Amino acid sequence: MLKFYFAPQTCALASHLALEEAGAVYEAIRVDFAKEEQRKPDYLKINPKGRVPALVTDRGILTETPAILFYIAQTHPAANLAPLNDAFELGRIQAFNSYLCSTVHVAHAHKPRGYRWADDAAAIAEMKRKVPENIAACFALIEDEMFAGPFVMGDNFTIADPYLFTIATWLEGDGVDPAQFPKVLAHRNRMAARPAFRRVLAAQA
Amino acid sequence: MLKFYFAPQTCALASHLALEEAGAVYEAIRVDFAKEEQRKPDYLKINPKGRVPALVTDRGILTETPAILFYIAQTHPAANLAPLNDAFELGRIQAFNSYLCSTVHVAHAHKPRGYRWADDAAAIAEMKRKVPENIAACFALIEDEMFAGPFVMGDNFTIADPYLFTIATWLEGDGVDPAQFPKVLAHRNRMAARPAFRRVLAAQA
Repeated sequence: MLKFYFAPQTCALASHLALEEAGAVYEAIRVDFAKEEQRKPDYLKINPKGRVPALVTDRGILTETPAILFYIAQTHPAANLAPLNDAFELGRIQAFNSYLCSTVHVAHAHKPRGYRWADDAAAIAEMKRKVPENIAACFALIEDEMFAGPFVMGDNFTIADPYLFTIATWLEGDGVDPAQFPKVLAHRNRMAARPAFRRVLAAQA
Repeated sequence: MLKFYFAPQTCALASHLALEEAGAVYEAIRVDFAKEEQRKPDYLKINPKGRVPALVTDRGILTETPAILFYIAQTHPAANLAPLNDAFELGRIQAFNSYLCSTVHVAHAHKPRGYRWADDAAAIAEMKRKVPENIAACFALIEDEMFAGPFVMGDNFTIADPYLFTIATWLEGDGVDPAQFPKVLAHRNRMAARPAFRRVLAAQA
């Protein structure tokens, strides 16, 4: 059985939602960031990067949200979470998810985890100050250029939806009013009402 | 025919190398960053993010290195650039490439492009100061935990190889001695000698 390592309030939510949407058989295991469990030897054996998510399969361990999302789609084809044999449509999904991980999540991380890129307290404070501006710019691009509707990619739910939902739940905490992005906000509300999402949100609470 | 937009000294090199390894039919178009062409209206129509790479296909435009690399592999199966039907091995490749884009490339970008995350000059200088430490930590993890050898994933050349090669060529500029990472350095040297790599490096020079 798949074992899925997560912590609440992290991007691991996206993969957790995809597992539930896929109808996957998995055990969800909480890593306690308050106790810094992610940096302890037992967890570093699972993910030497000391981060979540991590998915333990019968062949080995996978990390990184876009990779785990695509693995879930590929191993649960009946759930139809990605157009596996349409290289261009799949490329659009991967491009969207790659933008989320390498630009949007990174822009967000400069608020809670600025210590990754600077030691000086004033520099860390300056990065934090700029987060609302950067996150708003990212979401303006998503709202205006990327979001097809009603789902991220268009007519079908895909692995892009739980990932956008996850990062969109951080908007208020990042100092950005989601009402600026009505399509993203309506999507967030619709996603939160899906039965699979409700089950995962309850499990992570 | 595919149109591939790149700029020298950027991560677009990875996709350019993969196109050439795949034997793809494509036109490579240089975007002049010195003239800020990437921020001008003509280019923003191609990629509203104002970045490279961008790949124009007959179905539409793809961006983001991991997505373009996988698209090239999927549309050129004879080149065998990824185990397309092995979800776990493909997941390992996608996890590696996702780590490069969301952590290693981002760690590097704090040197030339710190202005993305701060406006204050002292903060930008502080980020730049920490780059060698962060890049060395990333490459230690790649050397010790991720690199299988002789190729990144093991016995076969995959889309992970041109991407690692690309980012490894930045080590000296990032203030990190590549001799600390003998497996990565030997890989970089072997890759640079491949005919397809030599053609692309000459074309981008």
